[in-house]
Amino acid sequence: MGTIGSYTYEQYCDRAREFHGSVAPGILIGGFMVEAARRKLPPGTLFDVICETVECLPDAVQLLTPCSVGNQWLRIIDVGRFAMTFYDKATGEGVRVHLDSRKLEKWPAIKEWFMKLEPKERQDRQRLLNEIREAGDRICTVDKLRVSLDFAATRHQKSVAVCPICNEAYRAEDGAVCPACKGKRLPYSVRPQPAPETRKTSQAR
Amino acid sequence: MGTIGSYTYEQYCDRAREFHGSVAPGILIGGFMVEAARRKLPPGTLFDVICETVECLPDAVQLLTPCSVGNQWLRIIDVGRFAMTFYDKATGEGVRVHLDSRKLEKWPAIKEWFMKLEPKERQDRQRLLNEIREAGDRICTVDKLRVSLDFAATRHQKSVAVCPICNEAYRAEDGAVCPACKGKRLPYSVRPQPAPETRKTSQAR
Repeated sequence: MGTIGSYTYEQYCDRAREFHGSVAPGILIGGFMVEAARRKLPPGTLFDVICETVECLPDAVQLLTPCSVGNQWLRIIDVGRFAMTFYDKATGEGVRVHLDSRKLEKWPAIKEWFMKLEPKERQDRQRLLNEIREAGDRICTVDKLRVSLDFAATRHQKSVAVCPICNEAYRAEDGAVCPACKGKRLPYSVRPQPAPETRKTSQAR
Repeated sequence: MGTIGSYTYEQYCDRAREFHGSVAPGILIGGFMVEAARRKLPPGTLFDVICETVECLPDAVQLLTPCSVGNQWLRIIDVGRFAMTFYDKATGEGVRVHLDSRKLEKWPAIKEWFMKLEPKERQDRQRLLNEIREAGDRICTVDKLRVSLDFAATRHQKSVAVCPICNEAYRAEDGAVCPACKGKRLPYSVRPQPAPETRKTSQAR
């Protein structure tokens, strides 16, 4: 019973397991959200997508649409809300779908999971999956919106510069040095590599 | 000739076309980068990935590894550098691979593409693809590094709050209102939906 895009529910679960690593509640609900959004767009609309969280939803979009992070038809603005926006690339007209906590009273297991009312190990997973399948997109709210054309326009990178500090290529429009060297924090430290001479010396010891 | 992960070169191109929408130069080079990184990790390492750009590379990672944006084993810190870091989840030890512009003198078509020396329509695509295939990962530099354990530790969302402004669920640790209502800009405006009363009135007119 029920399909998600061109998949049966079971096929979608298999694809989710393969791509996402597990049949997470969020990726199932995400599947229903993608289809709810799609149905509200005029057929044949060439759309792009915005996700408002990195959790699960981007994978539902990548599984069910041509939009991916790497082709930039899917963009993520992580404000931690369980929402996705589908919009016409040309006009910016679109819809935003979000999981609506006000609609969860009838679905106690989904509410418990979504609002993290119980630790994971105390949740009844089978009941949760059953509720998700039964609820479909009835737990979502869909709003019409318009995405700014500035954002919607595909912005191809115009020119490339080599950063004088790290010697790596970056978007020239970002300024005289790359964002990483300008101070955008990266969570790693590169280990000093022994210079070739040093290495020879230490081998000679 | 040549494989990328468990795929033949041709199979990888087919998978790229399917997932990314085209066999883009960046996704081919990304494939070689993923494999270069992987070979430097001890076999069996449970790794996570950081990409320093949203362009192409995240899709190469998602095609060739269990890491996806939605399962958060792949995280993106967009500083516009064509680089990816693979690291051991437990220890933070890893490697960073980047496309090194200093190694492109022997590969003029790759250099032209990467540094955007010519507009796309004046580039010789077939020559570019041939060079990419021939160069493999010889155009990359690999550095050892250590990712901070704070970042490496999977940080599960601890608790959820409902934002008093938008009425949507968000990460409680982000403060008293959600990041979107706190001012993190989203590029859309929601169209005012007529309230049920208004709608009735206007239908009655």
